[in-house]
Amino acid sequence: MKIALAQLNYFIGDFKGNIDKIISSIKKAKNQGADLVIFSELSVSGYPAQDFLEFDDFIIKCDNAVKSIAKECDGIAAVIGSPSFNKNNKGKRLLNSAFFLADGKILSIANKALMPNYDIFDEYRYFEPAKDFNIIKFKDKKIALTICEDLWAEDDRPLYPLNPMEELIKQNPDFIINIAASPFSFNQAKKRKEILVKNSKKYHLPLFYVNHVGAQTEILFDGGSLVINEQGKIIDEFEYFKEDFRIYDTNNLNDISNKNNPAEKIQLIHDALIMGISNYFQKLNFKKAILGLSGGIDSAVTLVLAAKALGNKNLKAILLPSEFSSDHSVNDAVALAENLNVDYNIISIKDIYNASNKTLKPYFNNLPFNIAEENLQARIRGLLLMAFSNKYGYILLNTSNKSEAAVGYGTLYGDMCGGLSVLGDVYKTDVFKLAKFINKEKEIIPNNTINKPPSAELRPNQKDSDSLPDYDILDKILYNYIELHKGPEHIINLGFDENIVRKVLKLVNINEYKRRQTPPILRVSSKAFGMGRRMPVVAKYLL
Amino acid sequence: MKIALAQLNYFIGDFKGNIDKIISSIKKAKNQGADLVIFSELSVSGYPAQDFLEFDDFIIKCDNAVKSIAKECDGIAAVIGSPSFNKNNKGKRLLNSAFFLADGKILSIANKALMPNYDIFDEYRYFEPAKDFNIIKFKDKKIALTICEDLWAEDDRPLYPLNPMEELIKQNPDFIINIAASPFSFNQAKKRKEILVKNSKKYHLPLFYVNHVGAQTEILFDGGSLVINEQGKIIDEFEYFKEDFRIYDTNNLNDISNKNNPAEKIQLIHDALIMGISNYFQKLNFKKAILGLSGGIDSAVTLVLAAKALGNKNLKAILLPSEFSSDHSVNDAVALAENLNVDYNIISIKDIYNASNKTLKPYFNNLPFNIAEENLQARIRGLLLMAFSNKYGYILLNTSNKSEAAVGYGTLYGDMCGGLSVLGDVYKTDVFKLAKFINKEKEIIPNNTINKPPSAELRPNQKDSDSLPDYDILDKILYNYIELHKGPEHIINLGFDENIVRKVLKLVNINEYKRRQTPPILRVSSKAFGMGRRMPVVAKYLL
Repeated sequence: MKIALAQLNYFIGDFKGNIDKIISSIKKAKNQGADLVIFSELSVSGYPAQDFLEFDDFIIKCDNAVKSIAKECDGIAAVIGSPSFNKNNKGKRLLNSAFFLADGKILSIANKALMPNYDIFDEYRYFEPAKDFNIIKFKDKKIALTICEDLWAEDDRPLYPLNPMEELIKQNPDFIINIAASPFSFNQAKKRKEILVKNSKKYHLPLFYVNHVGAQTEILFDGGSLVINEQGKIIDEFEYFKEDFRIYDTNNLNDISNKNNPAEKIQLIHDALIMGISNYFQKLNFKKAILGLSGGIDSAVTLVLAAKALGNKNLKAILLPSEFSSDHSVNDAVALAENLNVDYNIISIKDIYNASNKTLKPYFNNLPFNIAEENLQARIRGLLLMAFSNKYGYILLNTSNKSEAAVGYGTLYGDMCGGLSVLGDVYKTDVFKLAKFINKEKEIIPNNTINKPPSAELRPNQKDSDSLPDYDILDKILYNYIELHKGPEHIINLGFDENIVRKVLKLVNINEYKRRQTPPILRVSSKAFGMGRRMPVVAKYLL
Repeated sequence: MKIALAQLNYFIGDFKGNIDKIISSIKKAKNQGADLVIFSELSVSGYPAQDFLEFDDFIIKCDNAVKSIAKECDGIAAVIGSPSFNKNNKGKRLLNSAFFLADGKILSIANKALMPNYDIFDEYRYFEPAKDFNIIKFKDKKIALTICEDLWAEDDRPLYPLNPMEELIKQNPDFIINIAASPFSFNQAKKRKEILVKNSKKYHLPLFYVNHVGAQTEILFDGGSLVINEQGKIIDEFEYFKEDFRIYDTNNLNDISNKNNPAEKIQLIHDALIMGISNYFQKLNFKKAILGLSGGIDSAVTLVLAAKALGNKNLKAILLPSEFSSDHSVNDAVALAENLNVDYNIISIKDIYNASNKTLKPYFNNLPFNIAEENLQARIRGLLLMAFSNKYGYILLNTSNKSEAAVGYGTLYGDMCGGLSVLGDVYKTDVFKLAKFINKEKEIIPNNTINKPPSAELRPNQKDSDSLPDYDILDKILYNYIELHKGPEHIINLGFDENIVRKVLKLVNINEYKRRQTPPILRVSSKAFGMGRRMPVVAKYLL
């Protein structure tokens, strides 16, 4: 049997677009002699459609899409994913279904049994888990059709009450299909491959794995679809961060050498962020981005990534020096813009700052310069950038990094403005690594930007290290707290100073109010701020 | 047996505070001769603790709290709620437990079986559902100890695979205890009473129901704990929006006439918002609020509610007229501030606006006045209010209503700034009703504020009705879409103009990016923007 795998970039709720994309791949597969073509989980709706799934109208549109795609399955079969109504009078309203389409109709349906409901996942919010399992017979083959998490049942510490493959294997399938929407994080591809290989080995079956690719707001899908033979050997691996389409003969699953191993962490983050920016703009039908270029490393790296994603001609950099900005900051920012051939303007915030201080003077009673005036500068920058955005239709890119977002080192409605946060899931120490990665062939980001001590430049001679521990210490503490969920005692026992640890954890917790108001953050780690980390604003833990 | 019910306001993660509060009620109950005192669901941790539950350190602190409370149960028993580790090597890491404490130790544990995982609820994210059920024997009584949703199994369309009471009833309990954290919405108390009465009647058992009270960021708990006799008659009903404590004799469950029926919708919203503001400030240890007072109805109602919550002496109103503000707006705002005896300043935004335009002029190439300049005014107001906030420690109250938030009729980083959104879950038509409710005894909010056509006053002669359908039409369309999840065809079939319906639904969907960056919104309806309504920013549904 010849099987095609279509790794595509869907768009949530764009039924026409998703249908066209799927049908076009069905035709391509048929033209190339495939018997079956496989698409990823919830391909018809896009993933995650979140609470759109609560609208009957949305599900009816999915149903209709499935029917119209089925009609195209003439002389070829297809597996597509779609939410569907749970027709049983029990349990959640919906099922997460894999439709096996053949002969112009729905031949069979397999429903997902294991519903991830952690981190960014909310599947048990919508979907009733399947409780019975049947292999699908097609031509001379018996197929175990599974959906993403269905293969993630773990034997040693089972999260779920059952293991779908243990049921399906009793029916002697010839191979496994797994359709997935498995989001990227820099350590996920490795883990995913291990799990899938483990399944192939355990059940002695070939496995065809089709993943989503592309960005859905903050959630990035890296693709990396796989074909694994019955010995558990990966015989082919799809492109990362790109659509891809390949065909295999089940009778002849030879090792194909165009494998595409996922790269190292920093390269993965780099590629993922570029896809994230690019898809955000494409899908929203925007072309042009603007950002504030400070001469610091965060806005520098953001600008380079945006230039790679959108093209340098679609960017506008605004330098917004204040009286506390150093000359080298402006020079470094100009050098970068010129290296990238990006249009830039230098606009002083002085007049607006002076007018603001004059307006406030009668009410501020000669109180000393403090955080109010510091934030005022950042907010005037936000105000000017948003004025450009509103006047010319630029989308403002937010340049805050994860370390800052964690400890609240940023001004709400100031440098925290923007439509999309590019680096909000990248710790400062990794931002430095990204800068060096970008510069590995030539100096694009001025070395001075990389080498000088980080500073917000909102008061004379300010340095980040006045308020925060060194980033290599801070980031390790944050990683232990945020990614690993370690408490203060554990982190102190790792050898960090107790006062610093307690201060950092407290800063993380009290600054939840700021993070609630930040733009969507492109998720590249296993625990990003945003939908995968849900915290009350009002709480007293570790304060 | 004498049973005390303690309806208390907990604070998430404030273990010391929650323990002290619980122990103090245990002592009070004991002094008053009670055999047993009942506290609400997850009383030890506060609810919803969200992802703090993922920290072992947090759960260990809960464990220790339970142990230290148990030690106080000498001569009296207590039921408290706490998360606990799932010691079974299967399923989710935690259980949502009710601890029955007596003789200085944990006598028995009942675990929650039905995990709400819809709207604001994420319980299946953390908790493994209980699968076996045992009544608790205490003194001469057999007790069916259940937790909140456990009594919400519905017979006609079961959401869950089992019904805990059907198991417990087999063991012949004498009465039911239900400990809850059932959040307020203006129609929830009625539904809750129906469900609880139905349980009492079905099983012919008395029911002691103890709910949370108080606000946890945006989630409001109204209390209204209940005692129901075995005929399903409500014999006592606790205070709404206040802590309360009462004692009953199980052998003598007479109808008590100090019942406290929940009020009508507008009064409920009014009372709930006041508690929401008040608790937000108390728990964060802030006293003073600031807001921009425009002369319009939203900021007027917000100021009145804040004055009731925080006291007029803790408020600062800033009037920020622009060249497009009408005289009556300023007069109406001044009249309100004076009616409430709230400190106010009138600060012109003109100088900053002119300086901003001058700064931008070289880049705006004489392009006509548009949304950029409109938003500039709103953002200058945000900037000035935040400067006051930073200089003096005021928390800025956001004054946007739900209708505006729905269709994106507001300026991000402008009038959408704030630490807490007071009216973000109240449709404009209900804001008018709130204003009339506030004025029912005397004219606090100037009638002119209530009667004039709503306007943002950001360009000459602007009215909301230039851009939006009349609010009585808009709000009905929004209610059908947001609360009832109806699609466009259904809403059009109700008799609304097709173009208006499609335009409104599109506005709701494309403005998700703004709502992602709004402050927490006090939840008073069954579907508020925020954690209970999760939507992708990038999507094409109904566009």
